[in-house]
Amino acid sequence: MEKKIQVNAAIIIIGNEILSGRTQDTNTSLISLWLNLLGVKVQEVRVIPDIEEVIVKTINEVRGKNTYVFTTGGIGPTHDDITAASVSKAFNLNYEVNKEAFKILESYYKPGEFNEGRQKMAWTPANAKLILNPTSGAPGFIVENVFCLPGVPSILKSMLGGLKNEISGGKPIISHTINLRTVESEIAKSLTSVQNSNKDVEIGSYPFFRAGKLGVSIVVRSENQTKIDDCNSKIMEFVSQKKIEIIKDN
Amino acid sequence: MEKKIQVNAAIIIIGNEILSGRTQDTNTSLISLWLNLLGVKVQEVRVIPDIEEVIVKTINEVRGKNTYVFTTGGIGPTHDDITAASVSKAFNLNYEVNKEAFKILESYYKPGEFNEGRQKMAWTPANAKLILNPTSGAPGFIVENVFCLPGVPSILKSMLGGLKNEISGGKPIISHTINLRTVESEIAKSLTSVQNSNKDVEIGSYPFFRAGKLGVSIVVRSENQTKIDDCNSKIMEFVSQKKIEIIKDN
Repeated sequence: MEKKIQVNAAIIIIGNEILSGRTQDTNTSLISLWLNLLGVKVQEVRVIPDIEEVIVKTINEVRGKNTYVFTTGGIGPTHDDITAASVSKAFNLNYEVNKEAFKILESYYKPGEFNEGRQKMAWTPANAKLILNPTSGAPGFIVENVFCLPGVPSILKSMLGGLKNEISGGKPIISHTINLRTVESEIAKSLTSVQNSNKDVEIGSYPFFRAGKLGVSIVVRSENQTKIDDCNSKIMEFVSQKKIEIIKDN
Repeated sequence: MEKKIQVNAAIIIIGNEILSGRTQDTNTSLISLWLNLLGVKVQEVRVIPDIEEVIVKTINEVRGKNTYVFTTGGIGPTHDDITAASVSKAFNLNYEVNKEAFKILESYYKPGEFNEGRQKMAWTPANAKLILNPTSGAPGFIVENVFCLPGVPSILKSMLGGLKNEISGGKPIISHTINLRTVESEIAKSLTSVQNSNKDVEIGSYPFFRAGKLGVSIVVRSENQTKIDDCNSKIMEFVSQKKIEIIKDN
């Protein structure tokens, strides 16, 4: 049997605006899809408030259990931006001016515009490695296996590209989707038997309602293309036996 | 000083499809906004995979720390729907056919259509209280302070209405937003001072980029309208002093 090297990650979404429902989180799927390609599987996401004690506790809870931890949010200039101070506390490091970040920000802004609020964004845990920000200057940072990114999705997205070399993943996780014109209960038993004979493949079943019609997406995920192909054949077998229509335009 | 009765909730999003990035979670904001109106504050969200051990552990971790716990996902007919079995285990209850649920589903489907897969949806933890489903028959259920709801947002939404009487919240949480044509660093210091003199009010600052222009939303949240008004006046004071434009059409 193939030895499985699982590289896992946790995402911590920091921000009252997500918990209150005001803002819809989109960073989870952004980071997850990017990590899939690098062979890293997200195994948990936590959404937590802007409270130092909670941030410190959550980081320390997840960083030992995951190869990588990604935080989003709380690295701007205002009073509710406390991620850098909290990460410093979690790792028992000084929270101090990062000279490199200070230089980057100083040259990013026009003379006279690098005010007190903006200078706050140059503070990181001592000796943190910076994550460059091609969009808006203010860098993120890395401490051990914890990567701290901003909350604004467009800025976050622009920063992921430069991070590729920091991540050592396993094989990319391949996802294969089969869309069927059926309902879940019709295929439940057959699908269970495919899952039971392929325990190390992740098989999910998701009902959908589109253009006035019900359907089910079966999603097969693994790092191993052969295993995906095997599961696919077995699924196609019962789909054909049950005369279920396959939806192709998707 | 007014005694603060805080009613808190946790949301547990169960589903590999959210962790893989395939599906964008929208249930968090749906449930949070609904709970705000009932005076319940969401203090944490966990997104976890379809793994029994993880579901059991997570439920037992959060149910003691929160007045209410809401789970979404995993109550359908397929092999990856293991929420009811997992909740049974978490509470050390039998996982068994719920007679009321069986009756509801039996009469929902046409004769002959209530097959094995669908019968699975009648299984709940012993003596669970049902949450009726006006959209698609299959009920959710309540065990103590844990409310188990489906993952499909439209179905979930249709079930929340009937739950109102099950929730005893505090005062509704009022949210007041001020949109400004400025950048965060410009107001950071003044806003910090408003926050420092109003520690029990939640003040958030969120940059946005809309129609080619930068702006900042300041969000003030509390159960107490007077406190919101006080903060609002203090914010308006510095906004006026700094000659910052207020964006009204929002």
